Amino acid sequence: MIPAYRYKERLARLPELVWESGLDALLVGVGPDLEYLTGYRAMPLERLTMLVVPARGEPRLVVPRLERAAAEAELRTEVVLATWGETDEPYAVVLEDVPPGTVALAVSDRLWASHLLRLQAARPEAGWSAASAVLRGLRMVKDPDEIELLRRAAHAADRVVAQIAAGRLIGRTEADVAREVRERLLAEGHQEAHFAIVGSGPNSASPHHEASERVIQPGEPIVLDIGGTLEGYGSDITRTLWVTGGDPARGPDDDFRRLFELVREAQAEGASAARPGVPAERVDDIAHRIIEAGGHGEHFIHRLGHGIGLEGHEEPYLVAGNSEPLEIGNAFSIEPGIYLEGRYGARIEDIVVCGPDGPIVLNEAPRDLYVVDG
Amino acid sequence: MIPAYRYKERLARLPELVWESGLDALLVGVGPDLEYLTGYRAMPLERLTMLVVPARGEPRLVVPRLERAAAEAELRTEVVLATWGETDEPYAVVLEDVPPGTVALAVSDRLWASHLLRLQAARPEAGWSAASAVLRGLRMVKDPDEIELLRRAAHAADRVVAQIAAGRLIGRTEADVAREVRERLLAEGHQEAHFAIVGSGPNSASPHHEASERVIQPGEPIVLDIGGTLEGYGSDITRTLWVTGGDPARGPDDDFRRLFELVREAQAEGASAARPGVPAERVDDIAHRIIEAGGHGEHFIHRLGHGIGLEGHEEPYLVAGNSEPLEIGNAFSIEPGIYLEGRYGARIEDIVVCGPDGPIVLNEAPRDLYVVDG
Repeated sequence: MIPAYRYKERLARLPELVWESGLDALLVGVGPDLEYLTGYRAMPLERLTMLVVPARGEPRLVVPRLERAAAEAELRTEVVLATWGETDEPYAVVLEDVPPGTVALAVSDRLWASHLLRLQAARPEAGWSAASAVLRGLRMVKDPDEIELLRRAAHAADRVVAQIAAGRLIGRTEADVAREVRERLLAEGHQEAHFAIVGSGPNSASPHHEASERVIQPGEPIVLDIGGTLEGYGSDITRTLWVTGGDPARGPDDDFRRLFELVREAQAEGASAARPGVPAERVDDIAHRIIEAGGHGEHFIHRLGHGIGLEGHEEPYLVAGNSEPLEIGNAFSIEPGIYLEGRYGARIEDIVVCGPDGPIVLNEAPRDLYVVDG
Repeated sequence: MIPAYRYKERLARLPELVWESGLDALLVGVGPDLEYLTGYRAMPLERLTMLVVPARGEPRLVVPRLERAAAEAELRTEVVLATWGETDEPYAVVLEDVPPGTVALAVSDRLWASHLLRLQAARPEAGWSAASAVLRGLRMVKDPDEIELLRRAAHAADRVVAQIAAGRLIGRTEADVAREVRERLLAEGHQEAHFAIVGSGPNSASPHHEASERVIQPGEPIVLDIGGTLEGYGSDITRTLWVTGGDPARGPDDDFRRLFELVREAQAEGASAARPGVPAERVDDIAHRIIEAGGHGEHFIHRLGHGIGLEGHEEPYLVAGNSEPLEIGNAFSIEPGIYLEGRYGARIEDIVVCGPDGPIVLNEAPRDLYVVDG
């Protein structure tokens, strides 16, 4: 659990950052930014909940009246509360602290468009921007408590991978295996099981495949990419399996083994390149070059990785064009893949923290090809 | 499962509706609107996925290249696909179909603000509005296939309520019971377990209470408000329990019984008032008046209900100020509650469909106070 003083520190620094960014106020709706700043994790709904952080003045959390008690119970730091009733106009309540003529307002990136449009209509003279410009610098650098939660989430996901790899797979649908993954993620301590990609046979070549009614057959690979949240922090691991049905003749073919070894090398080299000061795109490039040199450049169709924390995907992104140097405390996935459309594919993914002396790999599940009876 | 021809019909009607609304195009991001129109249920992420529906011309779905195969596999209707690569500018790809000088664009209500801000920056001359103005009329009127899914979801939730009420509760934390609720919702056929409010003792007076580490005691009420999605469609049921620990002396006190009976009457009368042509606010008013007449008006601090479908809360809202008449096919919750802060509270909630001859109540779990040993 993130200790209360962390929230106090985060919120205390914010007005100055808002001021330095040339903003008049930051408007933070329900979502990861609000959770990061206050510990309050509400459901995103049509009733507006919004933290107003003026450049000068006290932050204030505006909540629906019926959620006041829930907010008070869950807030991890002191903040002034204001409520609105079922027939009030919440946008007016939010903008009470924002003087007319205000020119620069920022909203949290995940705020619903419906809320932003109402705010814009209420302040047509203002310029609007994304709050991530202010908050990214804070959220990208994980403190030791955040890293510990990422580690616990990673280890829970590791255990689920081991359990799935040890169980029956052949004859079951992908969707049935995905259901088992979700149940096991919860049983291993996750509060939410967000995704369970189970791509078998040709579906292993679709990076974001949705587990389908396809029945798993002997003699084919399965890309297993699973994750959820543990105390708000994400897990995200990918391992590649090959199910033989117990028949050695149905093991992975040579093409697949070569392809898998390339992915493994790119993953290992990418991870070990993730050091403070190294540009994010350079880490991406190292992995892409290895796969290109192996003749599969055109089959690695995505970036190497994404940041992870309170969001499953967040900054920093390890992608061509992102020249920002990695910082101590950045946490991100390293997940190269090769996808031969219509045939098969493979991916390996770990969560890695940029430590002062180099990469700290949080996942501990073996990175081999899991050749199993299934 | 919604049959494929429904998606075809929905999408076929749309360009004309866009045109009639005076819009140049509708831009629909990942979320319930996209699912309603195409059957495609993607995870909302930073990579832009967007259905572009021009007033004149063919709809087009823009997806990240690595999600093309997933989109093709999950789309339930034919739509032209366009892809963007990891280092492309997706907003430019989306706006290819939207000629410069375009003045009226609408975005789906749940689109992330970060995406809307980028679109606005790319088309500063345009006026922006919420797509719900166009889509609400379609989505509010459920067809028989949607109602059947809502019914299945409701019955699954009914079974979970019965299982929880029959099990051990005393001595467990609210959070532990909530975990059991989520597991049971999945076991009963839900794909996602979105919420499990377990408000025991004084927490029953907090309508949106988050299940906490509080340990349930004999001689107190529990408000159980649970739900998730089954094939995309929501369940949402509330029942109120009282745990005695097997000791008749620890049953509900007279105040609580009176309060509960008021809630029950308001719930029953509200549900039976939900007929075609009756203004939504009138149904809300009927329930509020009953509770006011019983002396608890100030303790019923929320609207009577919300629509439900692909979203847990959607239109129509049964709330003061919404004078729109109910229509055949509307589906919504009827959920009055009374909350005595610091002491206790009660709520009863069913999902009701506005049928041609009157209300069709989907939930079948008894609406009594569940007095259980616990």
